Amino acid sequence: MALPPQAPQSAELYLAVQHFYARQMQLLDDGKADEWAATFTEDAVFAANARPEPVRGRADIAAGARQATEQLALDGLVRRHWLGMLSVDTRSDGTVLARSYALVISTPKGGQAAIHVSTVCADVLVRDGDDLLVRSRHVTRDDLV
Amino acid sequence: MALPPQAPQSAELYLAVQHFYARQMQLLDDGKADEWAATFTEDAVFAANARPEPVRGRADIAAGARQATEQLALDGLVRRHWLGMLSVDTRSDGTVLARSYALVISTPKGGQAAIHVSTVCADVLVRDGDDLLVRSRHVTRDDLV
Amino acid sequence: MALPPQAPQSAELYLAVQHFYARQMQLLDDGKADEWAATFTEDAVFAANARPEPVRGRADIAAGARQATEQLALDGLVRRHWLGMLSVDTRSDGTVLARSYALVISTPKGGQAAIHVSTVCADVLVRDGDDLLVRSRHVTRDDLV
Repeated sequence: MALPPQAPQSAELYLAVQHFYARQMQLLDDGKADEWAATFTEDAVFAANARPEPVRGRADIAAGARQATEQLALDGLVRRHWLGMLSVDTRSDGTVLARSYALVISTPKGGQAAIHVSTVCADVLVRDGDDLLVRSRHVTRDDLV
Repeated sequence: MALPPQAPQSAELYLAVQHFYARQMQLLDDGKADEWAATFTEDAVFAANARPEPVRGRADIAAGARQATEQLALDGLVRRHWLGMLSVDTRSDGTVLARSYALVISTPKGGQAAIHVSTVCADVLVRDGDDLLVRSRHVTRDDLV
Repeated sequence: MALPPQAPQSAELYLAVQHFYARQMQLLDDGKADEWAATFTEDAVFAANARPEPVRGRADIAAGARQATEQLALDGLVRRHWLGMLSVDTRSDGTVLARSYALVISTPKGGQAAIHVSTVCADVLVRDGDDLLVRSRHVTRDDLV
């Protein structure tokens, strides 16, 4: 049976994607909505099976993150986005397909941390100089599958 | 006090093992039991403290995964296997000892994601051309320790 | 908007830090308090928002870990420390700033695994030959923020 090659095609790229996600999730969870949104391309598309329509463009992606950040503050919740089990493939057009599991951990002030949702995150990443940017993201919540 | 060297003996190998596990767990959780079983050697041994006897051989390992996949579908559950805190050591015979924590996250359709079990996974990996294969796996559930 | 560079400044260092944490957490969770404490410098400072005062020095850090290990055994609990979403920056003085999320998973004997706490871990690491050591650690529990 033919398997996809298990070693990442580029060790440097695999690490760069890991580090990219670490910084991206820290920005989101630190409430830095605009800096977080700047890790998407201007024309990025953010789709999720939890929403009827994708969010289109960095400005709307930023607006959504600002609103979510404000709501979490009102609710007294700290959220942490964990990505793991990351696979990375370079496509023939030079873009990068990154597939990972994403777990959202939620902790109420003075309360008990728990898993909020378990999801799969499929991104198309593009290079922007030395950086990476998300061109499209599709998040699938396991409870809605 | 002598500590084991903290840097991985081979950065390439450490990344290859990470990527191997990402693909392996995605195959299992996507219900691709045969492709998942193909990441074990033909004569692989899969032992667990949750089972009285190890499962021996790729065919039986595949059969077990197919059965588990069917049961999860019947139960309306999505499972995600997360590996983390991975340490990798090359042994004198060229095989690779990979020890990691493994967390199984379970989400019922329309329900709440939660940790199913917390385990430790000790694998002996062998090289197969550019790929890695599991020759033996020992999974220890923390609740049964 | 200027973002920090997303690729790790050194792929070797990023991997070394990952491997360092994997070994360090395995030592702690295996109850090897002295070996675990040996991954801190002699004069290390361990601060946490869950404690009024930092713990100072490897000897006191080891003593705290021994006490915690004994208490867990008395309580019949297995703890697993997971680090993730790791970002690594080398500072101008050559020390390394490592920021990560840390999740503590707790499993009672015969019982159900669950998240104990969700935290952020900010470490200053220093090189010690080929190894890394923690010079200072600051752990922030999300429930106490």
